[in-house]
Amino acid sequence: MPEREVRLDFQRPVRLGFDEAILCAGKSESQLATVFAQAAERDPSLLLTRLEPEVLALLDEPRQNAIDYDPDSQTGFFNWRAPASGEPRVAVVTAGSSDVPVAKEAARTLTYYGVASHAVFDVGVAGLWRLLQRVEELKSLPVVIAVAGMDAALPSVLGGLVPGVVIAVPTSTGYGAARGGETAMASALVSCAPGLTVVNIDNGYGAACAALRVLRLLDAAEPATR
Amino acid sequence: MPEREVRLDFQRPVRLGFDEAILCAGKSESQLATVFAQAAERDPSLLLTRLEPEVLALLDEPRQNAIDYDPDSQTGFFNWRAPASGEPRVAVVTAGSSDVPVAKEAARTLTYYGVASHAVFDVGVAGLWRLLQRVEELKSLPVVIAVAGMDAALPSVLGGLVPGVVIAVPTSTGYGAARGGETAMASALVSCAPGLTVVNIDNGYGAACAALRVLRLLDAAEPATR
Amino acid sequence: MPEREVRLDFQRPVRLGFDEAILCAGKSESQLATVFAQAAERDPSLLLTRLEPEVLALLDEPRQNAIDYDPDSQTGFFNWRAPASGEPRVAVVTAGSSDVPVAKEAARTLTYYGVASHAVFDVGVAGLWRLLQRVEELKSLPVVIAVAGMDAALPSVLGGLVPGVVIAVPTSTGYGAARGGETAMASALVSCAPGLTVVNIDNGYGAACAALRVLRLLDAAEPATR
Amino acid sequence: MPEREVRLDFQRPVRLGFDEAILCAGKSESQLATVFAQAAERDPSLLLTRLEPEVLALLDEPRQNAIDYDPDSQTGFFNWRAPASGEPRVAVVTAGSSDVPVAKEAARTLTYYGVASHAVFDVGVAGLWRLLQRVEELKSLPVVIAVAGMDAALPSVLGGLVPGVVIAVPTSTGYGAARGGETAMASALVSCAPGLTVVNIDNGYGAACAALRVLRLLDAAEPATR
Amino acid sequence: MPEREVRLDFQRPVRLGFDEAILCAGKSESQLATVFAQAAERDPSLLLTRLEPEVLALLDEPRQNAIDYDPDSQTGFFNWRAPASGEPRVAVVTAGSSDVPVAKEAARTLTYYGVASHAVFDVGVAGLWRLLQRVEELKSLPVVIAVAGMDAALPSVLGGLVPGVVIAVPTSTGYGAARGGETAMASALVSCAPGLTVVNIDNGYGAACAALRVLRLLDAAEPATR
Amino acid sequence: MPEREVRLDFQRPVRLGFDEAILCAGKSESQLATVFAQAAERDPSLLLTRLEPEVLALLDEPRQNAIDYDPDSQTGFFNWRAPASGEPRVAVVTAGSSDVPVAKEAARTLTYYGVASHAVFDVGVAGLWRLLQRVEELKSLPVVIAVAGMDAALPSVLGGLVPGVVIAVPTSTGYGAARGGETAMASALVSCAPGLTVVNIDNGYGAACAALRVLRLLDAAEPATR
Amino acid sequence: MPEREVRLDFQRPVRLGFDEAILCAGKSESQLATVFAQAAERDPSLLLTRLEPEVLALLDEPRQNAIDYDPDSQTGFFNWRAPASGEPRVAVVTAGSSDVPVAKEAARTLTYYGVASHAVFDVGVAGLWRLLQRVEELKSLPVVIAVAGMDAALPSVLGGLVPGVVIAVPTSTGYGAARGGETAMASALVSCAPGLTVVNIDNGYGAACAALRVLRLLDAAEPATR
Amino acid sequence: MPEREVRLDFQRPVRLGFDEAILCAGKSESQLATVFAQAAERDPSLLLTRLEPEVLALLDEPRQNAIDYDPDSQTGFFNWRAPASGEPRVAVVTAGSSDVPVAKEAARTLTYYGVASHAVFDVGVAGLWRLLQRVEELKSLPVVIAVAGMDAALPSVLGGLVPGVVIAVPTSTGYGAARGGETAMASALVSCAPGLTVVNIDNGYGAACAALRVLRLLDAAEPATR
Repeated sequence: MPEREVRLDFQRPVRLGFDEAILCAGKSESQLATVFAQAAERDPSLLLTRLEPEVLALLDEPRQNAIDYDPDSQTGFFNWRAPASGEPRVAVVTAGSSDVPVAKEAARTLTYYGVASHAVFDVGVAGLWRLLQRVEELKSLPVVIAVAGMDAALPSVLGGLVPGVVIAVPTSTGYGAARGGETAMASALVSCAPGLTVVNIDNGYGAACAALRVLRLLDAAEPATR
Repeated sequence: MPEREVRLDFQRPVRLGFDEAILCAGKSESQLATVFAQAAERDPSLLLTRLEPEVLALLDEPRQNAIDYDPDSQTGFFNWRAPASGEPRVAVVTAGSSDVPVAKEAARTLTYYGVASHAVFDVGVAGLWRLLQRVEELKSLPVVIAVAGMDAALPSVLGGLVPGVVIAVPTSTGYGAARGGETAMASALVSCAPGLTVVNIDNGYGAACAALRVLRLLDAAEPATR
Repeated sequence: MPEREVRLDFQRPVRLGFDEAILCAGKSESQLATVFAQAAERDPSLLLTRLEPEVLALLDEPRQNAIDYDPDSQTGFFNWRAPASGEPRVAVVTAGSSDVPVAKEAARTLTYYGVASHAVFDVGVAGLWRLLQRVEELKSLPVVIAVAGMDAALPSVLGGLVPGVVIAVPTSTGYGAARGGETAMASALVSCAPGLTVVNIDNGYGAACAALRVLRLLDAAEPATR
Repeated sequence: MPEREVRLDFQRPVRLGFDEAILCAGKSESQLATVFAQAAERDPSLLLTRLEPEVLALLDEPRQNAIDYDPDSQTGFFNWRAPASGEPRVAVVTAGSSDVPVAKEAARTLTYYGVASHAVFDVGVAGLWRLLQRVEELKSLPVVIAVAGMDAALPSVLGGLVPGVVIAVPTSTGYGAARGGETAMASALVSCAPGLTVVNIDNGYGAACAALRVLRLLDAAEPATR
Repeated sequence: MPEREVRLDFQRPVRLGFDEAILCAGKSESQLATVFAQAAERDPSLLLTRLEPEVLALLDEPRQNAIDYDPDSQTGFFNWRAPASGEPRVAVVTAGSSDVPVAKEAARTLTYYGVASHAVFDVGVAGLWRLLQRVEELKSLPVVIAVAGMDAALPSVLGGLVPGVVIAVPTSTGYGAARGGETAMASALVSCAPGLTVVNIDNGYGAACAALRVLRLLDAAEPATR
Repeated sequence: MPEREVRLDFQRPVRLGFDEAILCAGKSESQLATVFAQAAERDPSLLLTRLEPEVLALLDEPRQNAIDYDPDSQTGFFNWRAPASGEPRVAVVTAGSSDVPVAKEAARTLTYYGVASHAVFDVGVAGLWRLLQRVEELKSLPVVIAVAGMDAALPSVLGGLVPGVVIAVPTSTGYGAARGGETAMASALVSCAPGLTVVNIDNGYGAACAALRVLRLLDAAEPATR
Repeated sequence: MPEREVRLDFQRPVRLGFDEAILCAGKSESQLATVFAQAAERDPSLLLTRLEPEVLALLDEPRQNAIDYDPDSQTGFFNWRAPASGEPRVAVVTAGSSDVPVAKEAARTLTYYGVASHAVFDVGVAGLWRLLQRVEELKSLPVVIAVAGMDAALPSVLGGLVPGVVIAVPTSTGYGAARGGETAMASALVSCAPGLTVVNIDNGYGAACAALRVLRLLDAAEPATR
Repeated sequence: MPEREVRLDFQRPVRLGFDEAILCAGKSESQLATVFAQAAERDPSLLLTRLEPEVLALLDEPRQNAIDYDPDSQTGFFNWRAPASGEPRVAVVTAGSSDVPVAKEAARTLTYYGVASHAVFDVGVAGLWRLLQRVEELKSLPVVIAVAGMDAALPSVLGGLVPGVVIAVPTSTGYGAARGGETAMASALVSCAPGLTVVNIDNGYGAACAALRVLRLLDAAEPATR
């Protein structure tokens, strides 16, 4: 019998509190089939990221029906039982409208885990007033995810205005010296704002997971309030 | 009267809860003098980072005496009134002993703000048993700061074992393909461990600030316990 | 008569013990035709790598029939007489399922030379238990090929656990700071595990050749046992 | 007779309106001596940049006396006849105090040409209020030179607030992902603020020359006002 | 109601004197639809850049008809009321014919704001006579935009010949060591010509905006002449 | 009348002895049409490089018929009157068969100018005997063009064996650490072989021009022999 | 009691067959003192690499006496009991004499573990005859370590001539495009020689460890012969 | 007897017509001693490059006396018998005075081999008239070596004006985006001037050797004239 090419990490929910998430880009059709077969054996829910519509269309109909798909963020929820979600606990902010798909990957990941998020899009610092109008609402939330490409000035400015946890997601928008997001990523990493942390370029999923790690600590600390 | 070259951000404590921190590297002697003069006007405490002993020695004696200095981390506390600190709430873990000065910058920053930390040094993955022995104690703390250079495999492994907040600090240790910490930084940013976040190379101060943002949320959530 | 554009190195088997291997990517259709024509003159077997199905389909039917083709690894064996192969002597390990095609290129290259391999796929360090369960079987083999992209923490961890020869193959999986495999390659090169060696990004063929150099030394040392 | 190693461009003032400026870094002692000898033949004034005090000290006393030296910016004015200067026409703004030497190189270059400048130092965006307080005065000047290292968010924010000419000077302050000013330079180049232009890292002299090109156009347009 | 993904900066004309410009590349079809809907609410004119013909063709007919489109520069003017334009005030110079689309983006942006430009194309320094013939006409204009890829020697040479404002636009033409325009951009940034400034690779729009900032200062200085 | 976007350098043959060569990649269809129209006015011959078959097919039939096209090197000769060519004077050597198209661009450029070349293909140093067999013939020619990708060891070895002019052309073959030819180019530039010079990646045309500069000096020195 | 900053991996000899090796560069004086103190508790021998004479001189005399120090390779053997070593089993080859210190680090590491090596220095390919004279002796050894900077053509040529295990050590010799060894490292990684493997820049220690992994397999296979 | 660390290539003069040249930087004192000892055995002359005065001072007096040393270029001629040299045959041109040491390394290498050169220094394109005045003399020489840092526009302009062999030497002068000469090197490699070739950063020696290869061909072609 051949070695299994895919090996779902079913202990992850126990160990970390995260379901296995499948980065679909780079996986072959047969590997995705194996993912669903392994999942079917144990019936867990799965979060699918970077799932292009063309790849989704290759699945058989029952599988497709079992997936709650969002084309903007290219995320899918397999076997998902929508958890109750309350007030928004995370803000997802973008500098431009080109950053929105990455922001939605973050928001959808939060949704998957039952966390509502608050979207504040297209408020980059070149038109500072758009951001300053929204600062008070951002201050009221424990976590802010700041999604920005180009010079990524947004996370710096936010990190200096907001006392909660601020996570920067650099994006690959822009051209030339934007270098596919490298400039935004480096910019966020050297920001003067104290305590800003950074995830990989376009990694909305990762930022959401980082937010979830914080929220779980809060949930453990305040059982009565939720 | 000439423009002031230094302008302390006295509103920062109010806005973010952080005192002004002074990155001493790159500042001239007269600029540091101005820092202390401005601080003297208002009597705040200051956190000084990257303060080399030679620079410290240039200050006049009263200033030197007002500074609690740690040569390993090259940090100084000016006008500091040691806050009460309780049980460790942050683990500071290093892959090698060369990463220790950066780890101590993080630990000292936490100390400055009254947060005790738990040091777990020289437990890199090349000798995995050293790390696995310590996993249980790391799981019990809300935040783990993982300090590692070279291939930065430590934060990846930790991020897969520990459910709390994990912050990677890449370091500039190593030579050749280590590229002054660039490889460690990129490695941490592309780690598969979900929800790992990253700060700049050798930025122990920044990682500690990120930890403090989390701890303050926890403190606000659980007022009775502290 | 025009200069031949292709010049097979028929002395290579004598000199190094390797048949000529043809990297098909980047060669024109007429160059590949010349390869087969030259091979036909002398009737050697050839190992074809990076042979895309579309390119294979351009060959005439007798040529296609003479090729044992594997689409996953995009390798072909031309005029191949399957050598007897015994117990697995090389482990081919991957961090993720996206690394499998590269791993299969390594395994197929070994197969071509009559060496059986043992596949251990999708055991990346983010879920460390998957790897630790397999360490004992890996220790029993003289050579381990560790195939990993992203942060390439797998070869580091393996190099610290396994006493045999460990060869890292960085892969181009991942996005953003993965930089097409550059981060994985640099990470493997600066690993603290003593005696880890590295080949080019996605070079499963090269890792297998390196393993074969070791196995031949062993075969020469222990003639009776094989 | 040997070829002259230094050839002052005495036609430059006629052609461009700039005196020859001597970048002293990288020139040998004997080359600097030649500079002064050639200058002595024609008696022009010279602007000296990156003139370290140790190099200045190597000159003979009459030469030293003929130089108006500023150690902060490491600039010297040779044979300089202070032109009348009126109201400030250029703002020189820095994000941090470490950026001040570069800002002063710009200001001194302006001074050399009889242009007064207005210094606004240490108003980086991490403490946004420091900058917003000053916006009105910055708007009243035709040219703003924005000097910033690290993530260079300052020029982006300024470029969105100020309608005049805004020239970004990235600086080499910072460490790690600051990459000696490369990140700041790339950041400024990809800024969303419309019409921001950029000069080389730490090139205060170049930014001042760019400002002078603008001011001369203005002077030609409004002869009566000066 | 969902958060708006697009938020036009209607205060920009007041603040900076620029209409909102929409970088169409990277925006989804529905985001562009939102742009036009928001614009329709307030009836401003819009400058559209990097608008590919295929994207234009997706708009409904009334929208298409409201757009003055130029396929060479891929720019569109929406709701545009052609302002009177007089004598050329900006020269747009290219080194090669491959640089022309970027030059036209600059020229069209100027046209949008009612500024005539003077095109001098394909006068790179490898055939220096082509450029030297044109220097006198270039000297007569307040602003020169120098568009060049490869080694970007053109802006250097121009910056040494022309006393007005010179803005370099590096382009992504060329291959190999041209590195997608990085070499041209770095070359322009380190040019010895005093006071040359630089914008991002292929950013004709940005160079035009920088020119407009200068022209407005001139217009304010000489109200009677226009 | 609009500015001409293309401006052929008709003085180049006089100045340098080279006809204008047109790099077709990156030029629009209408620009190529202008090239031919301008050429038609004066009836020169033109060398066309990087002319893809699809672009050639867009030309009208008389133009196509006037072009001597070679698909391997993607070069075309327009209005070409084949000059007499004698014995080969330049060797064009490649390391692999993937380097052949670049080598042919060099050879065709030489042919265009009436210089015969001697092709020695697929003699990379991994099979050193293939090269050593050919060294004597290479030594007999004044110029050797060494075309190699990957590690570009071929030019180094040749430069140490052959006393004539040796010009390295790095190629973009290979993957991973080959970095699109950057490694080959850097390798050739740091070669220990004394007096090796280098041109841009894949620039067979440039290497041929460099060879032609040498041959013309020789022709001028030995008028009787040709 | 403070956390120990140094934690020797005493299980490594059992696990991998390697003693703990201490990379002294980057460790503080007190950390090195701790290393010796921990070693003293258990009395193992230690291999010290990158131990500069100035650092050695800081140790107390008994410690210094316990160290067998080699200044060329900057290696030290602490508490070393010279094992019997027989015939050379590893060739250590360098391209130039500047590569010798790295080669000696490899040779000394082998010596530490009782393996004799055969030095073949300064045989770079620019003078190919120097290398070809030595090929037969190199073929007779199971492992060849090829140490080369600049273009690293030596490992490529060797890998094509020698059938045993060939390990490339790129070095940081050279300037400019040598990029501190990056070019040599990339060159070795993309070499066409089948089965060449690579370690980090200047990592003679790592190459020796890789050789030792091979030799132990051989020793296990042929117990009687040693 | 230990392996010799230095192995002079005494066959090089026969093979290539170049004496062995010793790059002194990076060689230890004892290695240089060996160089002289080996040279003494055979009494050849040697060209020494990058020989710092401090290193020269370490040699014993007879050795020092046997060396004709030039501190500007840091070159030494050992056992040199000045060959007759006639009219200059190579022009060595620099853009700035900081490029002069590299130019002198080229000129001295030519001198060593009995070739006179013509120095034209500090004629960079920012002051184009300085260069244009000298073009006619440059056209009269078979080889021009163009030495330039920063944007390296000089070789491009020269390559378009001069029909002989033009060799670009990028230099490491400048700061920021000059990147230690990388920008100049890339700029020269992508120059539009046909047939320009390039050597490594600061490699005056290499450019001179390339010139010598050309001159020898000329000498062979015209025996009577020399």
